Amino acid sequence: MNIANCSSLVIYILKFQYYETGRKMRFERVKSEGLEHISYFASSEGQAAVIDPRRDCEVYLDLAKKEESKIKFIFETHRNEDYVIGSLELAKLTGASIFHGSGLDFKYGEGAADGQNFSFGALRLTALQTPGHTPESMSYALSNIDDGEKPFLVFTGDTLFVGEVGRTDLSGPEKAELMSGKLYDSIFKKLLPLGEGVIICPAHSGGSICGRAISDREQSTIGLEQLNNPALQKDKKDFVQTKISELLETPPYFKTMERYNLEGPPFLSKSKTISPLSTREFEMKMKSGALVLDTRSPLAFGGAHVKGSYSIWLKGIPSFTGWFLPYDKSILLILEEKEHLDQAFRYLVRLGYDQVEGYLGGGLSRWYGRALPLEHLGLLTVQQFKGRLSEGGRMVVLDVRTEEEWEEGHIEGAIHIYVGHLPEHIKEFSKDEPIAVICSIGNRSSIGASILRREGYFEVYNVLGGMTAWKNAGYLTIR
Amino acid sequence: MNIANCSSLVIYILKFQYYETGRKMRFERVKSEGLEHISYFASSEGQAAVIDPRRDCEVYLDLAKKEESKIKFIFETHRNEDYVIGSLELAKLTGASIFHGSGLDFKYGEGAADGQNFSFGALRLTALQTPGHTPESMSYALSNIDDGEKPFLVFTGDTLFVGEVGRTDLSGPEKAELMSGKLYDSIFKKLLPLGEGVIICPAHSGGSICGRAISDREQSTIGLEQLNNPALQKDKKDFVQTKISELLETPPYFKTMERYNLEGPPFLSKSKTISPLSTREFEMKMKSGALVLDTRSPLAFGGAHVKGSYSIWLKGIPSFTGWFLPYDKSILLILEEKEHLDQAFRYLVRLGYDQVEGYLGGGLSRWYGRALPLEHLGLLTVQQFKGRLSEGGRMVVLDVRTEEEWEEGHIEGAIHIYVGHLPEHIKEFSKDEPIAVICSIGNRSSIGASILRREGYFEVYNVLGGMTAWKNAGYLTIR
Amino acid sequence: MNIANCSSLVIYILKFQYYETGRKMRFERVKSEGLEHISYFASSEGQAAVIDPRRDCEVYLDLAKKEESKIKFIFETHRNEDYVIGSLELAKLTGASIFHGSGLDFKYGEGAADGQNFSFGALRLTALQTPGHTPESMSYALSNIDDGEKPFLVFTGDTLFVGEVGRTDLSGPEKAELMSGKLYDSIFKKLLPLGEGVIICPAHSGGSICGRAISDREQSTIGLEQLNNPALQKDKKDFVQTKISELLETPPYFKTMERYNLEGPPFLSKSKTISPLSTREFEMKMKSGALVLDTRSPLAFGGAHVKGSYSIWLKGIPSFTGWFLPYDKSILLILEEKEHLDQAFRYLVRLGYDQVEGYLGGGLSRWYGRALPLEHLGLLTVQQFKGRLSEGGRMVVLDVRTEEEWEEGHIEGAIHIYVGHLPEHIKEFSKDEPIAVICSIGNRSSIGASILRREGYFEVYNVLGGMTAWKNAGYLTIR
Amino acid sequence: MNIANCSSLVIYILKFQYYETGRKMRFERVKSEGLEHISYFASSEGQAAVIDPRRDCEVYLDLAKKEESKIKFIFETHRNEDYVIGSLELAKLTGASIFHGSGLDFKYGEGAADGQNFSFGALRLTALQTPGHTPESMSYALSNIDDGEKPFLVFTGDTLFVGEVGRTDLSGPEKAELMSGKLYDSIFKKLLPLGEGVIICPAHSGGSICGRAISDREQSTIGLEQLNNPALQKDKKDFVQTKISELLETPPYFKTMERYNLEGPPFLSKSKTISPLSTREFEMKMKSGALVLDTRSPLAFGGAHVKGSYSIWLKGIPSFTGWFLPYDKSILLILEEKEHLDQAFRYLVRLGYDQVEGYLGGGLSRWYGRALPLEHLGLLTVQQFKGRLSEGGRMVVLDVRTEEEWEEGHIEGAIHIYVGHLPEHIKEFSKDEPIAVICSIGNRSSIGASILRREGYFEVYNVLGGMTAWKNAGYLTIR
Repeated sequence: MNIANCSSLVIYILKFQYYETGRKMRFERVKSEGLEHISYFASSEGQAAVIDPRRDCEVYLDLAKKEESKIKFIFETHRNEDYVIGSLELAKLTGASIFHGSGLDFKYGEGAADGQNFSFGALRLTALQTPGHTPESMSYALSNIDDGEKPFLVFTGDTLFVGEVGRTDLSGPEKAELMSGKLYDSIFKKLLPLGEGVIICPAHSGGSICGRAISDREQSTIGLEQLNNPALQKDKKDFVQTKISELLETPPYFKTMERYNLEGPPFLSKSKTISPLSTREFEMKMKSGALVLDTRSPLAFGGAHVKGSYSIWLKGIPSFTGWFLPYDKSILLILEEKEHLDQAFRYLVRLGYDQVEGYLGGGLSRWYGRALPLEHLGLLTVQQFKGRLSEGGRMVVLDVRTEEEWEEGHIEGAIHIYVGHLPEHIKEFSKDEPIAVICSIGNRSSIGASILRREGYFEVYNVLGGMTAWKNAGYLTIR
Repeated sequence: MNIANCSSLVIYILKFQYYETGRKMRFERVKSEGLEHISYFASSEGQAAVIDPRRDCEVYLDLAKKEESKIKFIFETHRNEDYVIGSLELAKLTGASIFHGSGLDFKYGEGAADGQNFSFGALRLTALQTPGHTPESMSYALSNIDDGEKPFLVFTGDTLFVGEVGRTDLSGPEKAELMSGKLYDSIFKKLLPLGEGVIICPAHSGGSICGRAISDREQSTIGLEQLNNPALQKDKKDFVQTKISELLETPPYFKTMERYNLEGPPFLSKSKTISPLSTREFEMKMKSGALVLDTRSPLAFGGAHVKGSYSIWLKGIPSFTGWFLPYDKSILLILEEKEHLDQAFRYLVRLGYDQVEGYLGGGLSRWYGRALPLEHLGLLTVQQFKGRLSEGGRMVVLDVRTEEEWEEGHIEGAIHIYVGHLPEHIKEFSKDEPIAVICSIGNRSSIGASILRREGYFEVYNVLGGMTAWKNAGYLTIR
Repeated sequence: MNIANCSSLVIYILKFQYYETGRKMRFERVKSEGLEHISYFASSEGQAAVIDPRRDCEVYLDLAKKEESKIKFIFETHRNEDYVIGSLELAKLTGASIFHGSGLDFKYGEGAADGQNFSFGALRLTALQTPGHTPESMSYALSNIDDGEKPFLVFTGDTLFVGEVGRTDLSGPEKAELMSGKLYDSIFKKLLPLGEGVIICPAHSGGSICGRAISDREQSTIGLEQLNNPALQKDKKDFVQTKISELLETPPYFKTMERYNLEGPPFLSKSKTISPLSTREFEMKMKSGALVLDTRSPLAFGGAHVKGSYSIWLKGIPSFTGWFLPYDKSILLILEEKEHLDQAFRYLVRLGYDQVEGYLGGGLSRWYGRALPLEHLGLLTVQQFKGRLSEGGRMVVLDVRTEEEWEEGHIEGAIHIYVGHLPEHIKEFSKDEPIAVICSIGNRSSIGASILRREGYFEVYNVLGGMTAWKNAGYLTIR
Repeated sequence: MNIANCSSLVIYILKFQYYETGRKMRFERVKSEGLEHISYFASSEGQAAVIDPRRDCEVYLDLAKKEESKIKFIFETHRNEDYVIGSLELAKLTGASIFHGSGLDFKYGEGAADGQNFSFGALRLTALQTPGHTPESMSYALSNIDDGEKPFLVFTGDTLFVGEVGRTDLSGPEKAELMSGKLYDSIFKKLLPLGEGVIICPAHSGGSICGRAISDREQSTIGLEQLNNPALQKDKKDFVQTKISELLETPPYFKTMERYNLEGPPFLSKSKTISPLSTREFEMKMKSGALVLDTRSPLAFGGAHVKGSYSIWLKGIPSFTGWFLPYDKSILLILEEKEHLDQAFRYLVRLGYDQVEGYLGGGLSRWYGRALPLEHLGLLTVQQFKGRLSEGGRMVVLDVRTEEEWEEGHIEGAIHIYVGHLPEHIKEFSKDEPIAVICSIGNRSSIGASILRREGYFEVYNVLGGMTAWKNAGYLTIR
């Protein structure tokens, strides 16, 4: 009656424990748009680790809840410079231990030694010192203990991206060569030897300011990088030479992030509720020195805005606020719709801007319904813009794109200043001339135009569609 | 005044189009728990493809909505046998084209040729004929046109899993050798040559009945499989020999799935609302022949249940319903709580069980409040169970685990019948003896016990904790 | 103290069945913003009724699911004229019976007799014929059978609102007097006698076009209406006189709604997915005659828009689309953000506009990035507008507010045409003169301006803040 | 037809400001199930008030966010005794002012004077001293300033419920007569004169322990209460006599609530994350004195449970935990599924149980998989139970329902002790006899049975279906 007797064959099915004790492993990437920062959550058998958590960290708690796991470890790949790390926040909520590199004078957490192992469930994480991007940069290899010693995945932080390698300029130009050499060694001697088949999980994806040309493709492996990553095709000398001749932009807020992430950022107060403000309250706070951040679209901003406000469209907040807004002044928001509040608030909190004092209740129509003063910005289609240029009138053309974009083709006679550097160069412009600001599509140019308007430049235009439209219209560019 | 003049260095930042036109690529895995089926969504620049969609397909529509993309292609890796494919359903909602392998007489969609390319945005998918699991099995390699010809990822369907390869027994034992040879060639000549660094995306993860020993680790690459996958360590002869000597279970519902997926399954009626039933309605439908599926926990089922009901705990529905429930009878549900309805319904719909007629409103307490007849099942702790055995009384011990689990150790004197085969063997038991059903933890044994109770076996016990507890208690097992 | 000793005292606690069988009654109002339509869901002991369901009816299914109840009855208070009733849709999904008044030649449902009772759980609903708004208007009184015969609540449809009574002009001017008399009798002889304490539940709240001056307060009773409702302070003669001298606007789409709601509207196809369109697809559909509905804010519309598009801001869709868009042309949407799609789609579906063919993927910036032709609209602050008027140049001031608003004060020299009637009057304007369109704040004036632009009026302005800002600025108005 | 020609007719439409400035008023009832506590949110023109907020107060913040309003006022109707008031918590998050009655020595907030007015937007709230339930009980009448002085709604706290009036026994038996007289005067002299049409909004609905027989109907008015409320049909003498002869149960936790609500409860720590515990951690905490609260269904509890655990089904937590669990011991949870954690946690927090230390990760199957000791409880159907009684064996029948239920009919020979008083009476039972615990359906009897098991009573049964099933089976009861 034993069914096995009917057959000399071996009968298998599967590990039925699955159905009974749940999934053994869970791995999730958590992406923070705008910064294009990626953090990771890995859990196995009720224990979890988070790599490079962001500051608004409920997302990890929710994952842990779903997996019925306890967050045991938090790993930082390096002292980040482009956002506030959420390690302390998350540790406070979970009791997890924090580990980072050991080269810097961190005021919290512990330094992980090269080769140190951390186990949680069936997973084992091995710390790898991979200096170069920063002196204490770490990578962390992840292995499944059922598979033996070899890792299947490596968290590469800002050391190795998809299609790119980390910046080496942040320790200053004098150290760039040294750091570039270290980066080369970290990649070639520590990461590549892990094996072609190993999956890489970097801290940023395409669009981040932390790498020049990170690929749009988000999945990669050591093998794919060896094949496709331009930097990995070079020998050490070439590699270093390329790195030190590349100069990347460093927004001023990086300094604040570096300090925060070394000393431990302030806890994110849970008690803060951002309130709608009446026009009267809004005006009073403006008079007391609060800055106005207008997150509406460039079209709406062009149509009408509160005098003196910064135009940074909602999804541009993570990338551009840090270039312009100081940390010691209150911030007031103007939103396209109240549903944007949460997103705007998160974006700012990730950059350490905790001083939002409210938003204009009812939106801008509340303001103009009160007949309060408004300004507007000229919006030009490329056809209109071209017409104005052809007429030969005076008009300064200010191209605020990056150097790289500029070099790929620009309008003859245009002046080039990257939008982030406009404040330092603003005195170079005359207030008597109309200025047309242009970028690739019309968003960064709206920022630039708002900066000019704040400084009293009167006739300022934003070119809709920017260089994209210019080229699509078939107009000429030079290099 | 051009800032570039200050420096002879090249200044780069990043592709700012990101901030302005949104993310260029999105790749998501959509997992259906229980079946451990994985489907994939990939989009680029407003166009998307879905690989092996499930039948409840709003998830893909939601992803497409978020990405502002239109689903252009649906690819099937093979005529699936363990669930109803959602291709037609999704095509109806989106107008997408369906592609599958070309060996079978499909009543819908088109056959893709080996090497045929499909482009959507910056992505290109290349069809690869990889027969073996089924005669028309396909894999699809995905490449980023910016990276050149080489793919970065391959959808391997049921050809290559993480740590396992596909079954080759479904075409019947007489073809197993032929199919195993084809599978070997598909893997070694088509997939491995793609390169170690290529990421693999199979159609199932650990726990699926479609592979014997799929790994818990869900991330893998060609290189990692070459290193870790036991099947890939063999030469062709050994590979084939191992495959033909392995006999996997084939639940009877596979036949229905195969027919559905060849002919095109019925559309999922959106108009169906599953209603709560009064005890009276429930009784009447039972009398008309409807079957009762009790999805509560084994403990609650043991405590009290409606006579004749099948005990399949909620998360066990995807794996076990197809062994027991026919397609031509109505189904009535008993739920632990009404919030489980949606999940139970989805699980059943994925298996093609569209004939759910309602659930017991108010749950089982409504039933016993009406003093309607109840049955119960003896629940034994392993200590009690051991006590009974030691006392030497008559008690049949029925182990319903898989052959593989059985062989790793079982109780001396136990009888082994896999739970799925219990219906065929039930006549072999006497109704005069008490029967203790045991599995690994207590869930499958509850199914087994409910099958016995349905057939009139009176003294039936479920051993709580099963062999896991037995071993943890330090009791002896034999092999 | 032994509590058993206290037996001479009566000891009560509460009906513990609550905790054990769940809540016995649930009553919810479901509001459709914009139309300010209110439908109602009432359930008791597993049975439910819905009064005046809307067409996108998942909300009632969700409530029924939560209450574990089956929707048994659907009641219509009258053949609605301002939206498509969802009765058939909901009946299809649930099997519920539909009841409405019996005076008209309905093609579906049944006529309820005056005094007819319907029971569900502990609730009883009694039909009351209350003609006046329409010939077959019904009210439905709700009572709790535990409380005896007297109702506690009455669904008053469009017969009695909070602070207002129903319109009597929709059967045509020749019948207005007759209908007004009927309305008076229905209210005074059928509703008021129910008792002061009875709660009223009308079909619309403040802001609806179905009543002139419905109160902002949404809670009311017979007693409160007797106290506060201006119409109820009159005798029959005065009541009728007031009603027939009031002329309310009737948007042209009412005719379509009336037909739909008499014959039974088409089923809402679940299979429709609204897709993003490329600029090319968008242009092609425009060329084939599709109309463009731009749902962005008036500021953004003013900044730039596609030639020929209608400007109706998102929340204005329910109230204004029916004035302008025909039912026989395709509609294309332009959205501020893709997240608005669902809301715009629902709003249109409630009005019976089922012919949306897609939306502009990527939003307007995709359009101008392609250098496709754009138009703009002059936006004037009231200060600028006043300046222009003071300068004495030619400028037509077109006030598109309602007659009532106009009479409360307007700008000297302005022309008054209600925005809904602008199409019929458009020929009265000269294309040689600049036209400034003004409303109360700037939204309806944007509609008006877009209508003018469509007809080729070139110099058209929208006055931001409208008459609200004008008055707040302290400028003069006349009556 | 030129509409301007129609000027002899008055043309109205509606207040179009609606579409432009948003809804002017919002009123929401927020119900906390189990406690059947109702709090209220009212907002108008950007300002809001909350009446009797609960401690987990995000719900009010979310409403305020949706309405773009700032919570300005918090009103307490009285020092609540059945839950922890959320006033301080909400005030901390919003900066709102707290008002309550002035008779007690509150350590926070301000006392409102009789007749004191509070305005927010177009709403005005007037404080009314209505002592009786407690010495400082307040009601708050709400009026719409557009409607004149008369209120349309009154928040009646625990003074007047739907179908019932407040308890007057909580100040002690010696004051019951005095308080009852005050309550009569508050209702008859303060509330009823507001007018029949005024809507009443009490602090509790049917099922609350704060009133003996609150109606299932949740909507009511002064007029409906005058008609239907039994207490309002009496003269003062009868009213007082009835009140003092009624003895309601007072769970011991009321004392803690009273103290908390007088002094201000501790802030709800946002930093607490309830973690899953391993079986080892769970055992260790048990050994250190933590109590186990098993929230699974009575059936599952009967099937198997951890020795010493309290059986309180999930939805029974709000009503029964306060009878049994002390505030000075740690609590460990056992959940049917991890998704119940949030609900269990909220229920406990509302009662001030902030000492939850974790829950058993993986549920009870994790426990029995480890072969850890389990107990079970006999579950008897009424048929089995009746059989046992008929056989004439020894069996104590313990009826744990309320006195009121008991008096409506019970089993001959049964002993009656209300479940909440079982701990004090437990010594009255012998451990040598089997005890069958019965309630109305099987939930409270599971609590009772678990209390007996904790104290070492061995043979304890829970009768499934309880007296409901007993009667439905047609068995005899006596009075």
